[in-house]
Amino acid sequence: MNAAATQVGPPDPQVRAEADARLAGLATPPGALGRLGELGAWVAATQGVVPPRELTDVRLVIFAGDHGVAAHGVSAYPPAITGAMVRTFVAGRAGVSALAAAHGVAVRVLDLGVDDDLEGVPDDVRRHKVRRGSGAIHLEDALTPEETRAALAAGERVAHEEIAAGAQLLLTGDMGIGNTTPAAALIAAGLGLPASEVTGRGTGVDDEGLRRKQEVIDQALRRAGDRVDDPVETLTALGSADLAATVGFLVAAARAGVPVLLDGVISVACALTADRLAPGAVAWFAAGHRSTEPAQSLALDKMGLEPLLDLGMRLGEGSGAVAAVPVVRSAVALIRDVALLAEIAP
Amino acid sequence: MNAAATQVGPPDPQVRAEADARLAGLATPPGALGRLGELGAWVAATQGVVPPRELTDVRLVIFAGDHGVAAHGVSAYPPAITGAMVRTFVAGRAGVSALAAAHGVAVRVLDLGVDDDLEGVPDDVRRHKVRRGSGAIHLEDALTPEETRAALAAGERVAHEEIAAGAQLLLTGDMGIGNTTPAAALIAAGLGLPASEVTGRGTGVDDEGLRRKQEVIDQALRRAGDRVDDPVETLTALGSADLAATVGFLVAAARAGVPVLLDGVISVACALTADRLAPGAVAWFAAGHRSTEPAQSLALDKMGLEPLLDLGMRLGEGSGAVAAVPVVRSAVALIRDVALLAEIAP
Repeated sequence: MNAAATQVGPPDPQVRAEADARLAGLATPPGALGRLGELGAWVAATQGVVPPRELTDVRLVIFAGDHGVAAHGVSAYPPAITGAMVRTFVAGRAGVSALAAAHGVAVRVLDLGVDDDLEGVPDDVRRHKVRRGSGAIHLEDALTPEETRAALAAGERVAHEEIAAGAQLLLTGDMGIGNTTPAAALIAAGLGLPASEVTGRGTGVDDEGLRRKQEVIDQALRRAGDRVDDPVETLTALGSADLAATVGFLVAAARAGVPVLLDGVISVACALTADRLAPGAVAWFAAGHRSTEPAQSLALDKMGLEPLLDLGMRLGEGSGAVAAVPVVRSAVALIRDVALLAEIAP
Repeated sequence: MNAAATQVGPPDPQVRAEADARLAGLATPPGALGRLGELGAWVAATQGVVPPRELTDVRLVIFAGDHGVAAHGVSAYPPAITGAMVRTFVAGRAGVSALAAAHGVAVRVLDLGVDDDLEGVPDDVRRHKVRRGSGAIHLEDALTPEETRAALAAGERVAHEEIAAGAQLLLTGDMGIGNTTPAAALIAAGLGLPASEVTGRGTGVDDEGLRRKQEVIDQALRRAGDRVDDPVETLTALGSADLAATVGFLVAAARAGVPVLLDGVISVACALTADRLAPGAVAWFAAGHRSTEPAQSLALDKMGLEPLLDLGMRLGEGSGAVAAVPVVRSAVALIRDVALLAEIAP
């Protein structure tokens, strides 16, 4: 991937106009479909066809990795959980597994930087691995520049594989104890905000943990200095292998013209970074679920996105995106299948 | 139905405690499932079994009827639309038809009081009809006491039919030009509020229509006087055949121990009235979608319910409830299928 920012074109404006015209011609009161009207028209524009096709092939990719900061009191859980959860995804027994099965979403989990060799886990999960764990960002860079490039390229490669296999809608999820710390740092870097505005409780740190987390993010931002002006440098300094891969995945999806439904703060931090790397990419993204992390809302506001769901979930794993898939399907069903006034008027 | 209020017992507290214990034992951080945790435990309690069964049989009943107030400037649409929409439901081409097909929800539409003979429409749709149109509530009673009883009984009968046929979750919808006016009046009556607090724009009246609508509701409330202290008298004075049938349906579902997912302001006005008739019934109800009508929020607050979705829809028809069905299924999937810590701990 070229570090120089290159623009991504939006979903087809001509098709979008046709979709808006179809919405206006439905046998429903103007505006009565609320956000589902707009969402259906967006899907049509991303597909380049009105009405849009049903979303029968929806795929979630979970990027897993460990974070050096997890050893520094920023999480309520020990790092060993990351590897255990990768095994739980593979076994299909995690929260997101249950949601994905209920809503017909395919799940693929990839180890980009878990601090465990994950012996016995299928090769497909492990073959994109960049390193074991990522640097503790308040003390050192998360990655070497080569590792950042490798992770971005891995994410791109995976997006291309999923698209080639038929994905109509992609979702990203993340697993990694400590991951809300680098995510908040990416958002602070992208928006030029201090640690105090982006730090939240993640899966549930106490007041002392929250204070410690804010300190770590603040220290990381000071350490990175003006390197945060460049999105790839930001990933090297403040990200991780799993976050960089997610960014590569998002950029590739947008460039290939495949829409993405975002998850919580990790996914949104990566989307913000993807849009810095490939300005305009955000036009291919929709937001699935409102996170309890303040950084997510700040980044979404900047990108002009509003989550479809707000159910108080803070599970990660892509669960908020998967839970929102039926909302996107509702939108597609309405713009596809409701009678046109012209069909039913006497 | 006996007009005297008789208490309805809640979903099984013992099963609810078991469900809460199962939630606490899932291999997810405490509280990470957000509202989906609580919702799944509620479904389990309504079914009397932990984990709950998957919701494969979900049924929406749309009660249709006209409202005398529609001839008095309270709606942006002419009353003839009501009958046309009944035909559109029968043809499976309405907004709710598209959503229901997408989410595997069965739809049944019943004419309780449409001001049209609906010739050619299947008998099942018409056999519960109570009258053509309901009285203009600011000038006269909506129904005679006999008609109110007949409509309540029709709703009960239909609930029993759907439950006997296997319904695990029931949804109510309404179709009738002018229907947000009697719904707001029922809520004002139930909460002891003035017209000014409950009046909204429905499917889209202008400022003059809004003013007129508030005047109609105010006049109706003054006309009804202290008859609003009795919920059945309230339906006679301020309701309609379709709203009374919906109340009967909701009471019967709660008494039979079958959970109901509510829709917008009409559905919620009927739920409030059902809970007045059968105190405790509300424990069997969940709220699907936040309406733009202020009366809905007021009634939900009183009942302690919070909608699962807030997508700006104002289509009616039960569409907000149908759109929320996948959220309930998400909740069931999580409490059913996520690994227990005890299963995966080494």
